[in-house]
Amino acid sequence: MSGPVTIALAKGALLKDSVARFAAAGLDFQAVLDPGNRLLMVPSACGRARALLVRNADVPVYVAYGQAQLGVVGYDVLREHQLPVAELVDLGFGGCRMSVAVKASSPYRRAADLPAHCRIASKFTRCAEEFFEALDLPMELIHLAGSVELGPITGMSEAIVDLVATGRTLRENGLIAIEDLFHSTARLVGHPLALRLDDGALQEIVDRVASASAPLS
Amino acid sequence: MSGPVTIALAKGALLKDSVARFAAAGLDFQAVLDPGNRLLMVPSACGRARALLVRNADVPVYVAYGQAQLGVVGYDVLREHQLPVAELVDLGFGGCRMSVAVKASSPYRRAADLPAHCRIASKFTRCAEEFFEALDLPMELIHLAGSVELGPITGMSEAIVDLVATGRTLRENGLIAIEDLFHSTARLVGHPLALRLDDGALQEIVDRVASASAPLS
Repeated sequence: MSGPVTIALAKGALLKDSVARFAAAGLDFQAVLDPGNRLLMVPSACGRARALLVRNADVPVYVAYGQAQLGVVGYDVLREHQLPVAELVDLGFGGCRMSVAVKASSPYRRAADLPAHCRIASKFTRCAEEFFEALDLPMELIHLAGSVELGPITGMSEAIVDLVATGRTLRENGLIAIEDLFHSTARLVGHPLALRLDDGALQEIVDRVASASAPLS
Repeated sequence: MSGPVTIALAKGALLKDSVARFAAAGLDFQAVLDPGNRLLMVPSACGRARALLVRNADVPVYVAYGQAQLGVVGYDVLREHQLPVAELVDLGFGGCRMSVAVKASSPYRRAADLPAHCRIASKFTRCAEEFFEALDLPMELIHLAGSVELGPITGMSEAIVDLVATGRTLRENGLIAIEDLFHSTARLVGHPLALRLDDGALQEIVDRVASASAPLS
């Protein structure tokens, strides 16, 4: 390929592990972890690649449009946004569950027990909709941008669908997870056309990241 | 009304001025400005009201569903999400412009000059769509969650539609605003039914906030 490989990295919780995984593949993006870094486009130490620092939800956008040939993003985002990117490697880190949660005082203990047409608040309304459709339970979905746990607390929604890592936020807000939609981890994704036209440089990065991500046997 | 008045406040840039405006109306929400505050629901010092601390985009959701009787939110969010809330007072602060911006090196100096079907990146794709439709210019809109300035920098989009306050972010990224869609300020909004059923308590708050917001004559 001509020019440096561009890799879209999600700012936030996945960034540190993403940098470590590319380090194992010979690409040093340590500079993006510098708290003083204000750049959104950061070259690797060797100059053969550059990182695009973007929001989690924007990683598949840059990869789908080919502005980045590779990207690292949570499986939850891939499920929610369903953009045309190739899923290449399960990186294993960033593990969490997409769960249905209700107030601890709620009488409902399974998703299928929830009353039809009740309100579900979520940042992941597409995931939630698919899940309840599969249960044949029509629900009123309320899209929120953050602090979804306020839905049941204020009485706006009966339940929420949200990512649960340690469960601390749920506990602090008097909520309990009653069912999981799926388990999510960080994934290496690629632009399908870039992978097809690859002269070997991309595949080498993908292979090295995959080796560094393989569970120890 | 029964129980305390609930007021949805946007976390972030609008919060400090929002608290000052309600202080002028006799409601002390100073506690929400404490950096150590982790609560999302904060009672006023007098106990007659409580603040819900939510994302900008979620303020009209809580007000539309009646979980908050009043809320403070940017006009940009009201334009983008178009939920059924009553717009009560222009609070005057949080001023910014929703603008079309291009690379400084771009040949285009008016929105109407942009080529049809070019790509526009934005967090406010509904606002952008309406604007270009009114110009009779069909565009391909790309929704991003943040750092929209990367659109033209990476070559993914010809232009962006984004909020511009000081213009510093545009300048730092080599972009210039070429046209404004509208000017935005913070607005006091209310739940239409709560206003209709109000026994006077809500209207008193609205009137006091309005007085504190009136331009000096």
